[in-house]
Amino acid sequence: MAVYTEKYDVEIVQMKKGLLTIFTGNGKGKTTAALGMAVRALGHDWKVCLIQFVKGTWKTGEWDALKVYGDRMVIHVKGEGFIYNADDIERAKSSAREAWQLAKEILESQEYHLIILDELTYLLNYEMIDQGDVCKTLRTRRKDLHVVVTGRNAPDCLMEMADMVTEMNEIKHPMQSGMKAQKGIEF
Amino acid sequence: MAVYTEKYDVEIVQMKKGLLTIFTGNGKGKTTAALGMAVRALGHDWKVCLIQFVKGTWKTGEWDALKVYGDRMVIHVKGEGFIYNADDIERAKSSAREAWQLAKEILESQEYHLIILDELTYLLNYEMIDQGDVCKTLRTRRKDLHVVVTGRNAPDCLMEMADMVTEMNEIKHPMQSGMKAQKGIEF
Repeated sequence: MAVYTEKYDVEIVQMKKGLLTIFTGNGKGKTTAALGMAVRALGHDWKVCLIQFVKGTWKTGEWDALKVYGDRMVIHVKGEGFIYNADDIERAKSSAREAWQLAKEILESQEYHLIILDELTYLLNYEMIDQGDVCKTLRTRRKDLHVVVTGRNAPDCLMEMADMVTEMNEIKHPMQSGMKAQKGIEF
Repeated sequence: MAVYTEKYDVEIVQMKKGLLTIFTGNGKGKTTAALGMAVRALGHDWKVCLIQFVKGTWKTGEWDALKVYGDRMVIHVKGEGFIYNADDIERAKSSAREAWQLAKEILESQEYHLIILDELTYLLNYEMIDQGDVCKTLRTRRKDLHVVVTGRNAPDCLMEMADMVTEMNEIKHPMQSGMKAQKGIEF
């Protein structure tokens, strides 16, 4: 697998076509794999933009770790977090539309080699933003621009357009009670 | 998922128990997710060791990218690459045993917070090293040591012992001819 992965990596660097990669499924590792893609790209001296569409409430190591790459790594944390009740939906929708507008501008800019749209599918699953607009924007993007999309239940138009799709399936997850509570919120 | 992942991340930092994480399956993203785990750990100021059991023939961005973390990130590239024909097997076995011996010493040292055993399952699938020894070594490791194992067909004893298992399934892969050839070699 390592050689395979690396071959793929070399391919995307050498060829002029930007690839659309999707990490979907209900398992852990989607955002983590996207983070790995970012690091690999940074190792090629690329410029990378990561847009996090669902705001987390935890301070995490990854952002700190990526600081070392200076202005070659740009991170936008947008959105409102996962939706807990109906009151939050309108605010979440407005926030989601704003986040997608920013993403469109970034996708249309000439600035990056790789753009990661983390949890974009969450916004699509809740119909917070227009799926047709998302698919059209990605389809008509700069020819050499690599994009990674993460999140559960990626819609068909993205799956069909994608060059590479991996579904992460949860076989086993940590059984700490904190994790269980978290899971109840998420589903 | 982002919140979930991050919660998980916070959990493993705060609790004293080291987790065994497995990324398996036939899809892309296993090594990439492990790389993401490394970066996240580095962001927590941890010390990380990555042992690559199958030597790649491609120069990749990830190693270059990880250089910025200095001596908090240690990488050992061992093994002989994927096996192409029977002549290579004896050399590969000897190389595999040597790599596993090094891994055992590293696992038994006090030096790291996170150790990544990349493509360890390849050695087990080809019976190059003793599965019982691998499982015993991981089971009796330092209580707070986090370990990530990647590779296809992780054996049952590892799956049972693991705290978190994600199976990466290939739904779609790039159709470049180079990829097809590479795929023929791998399987």
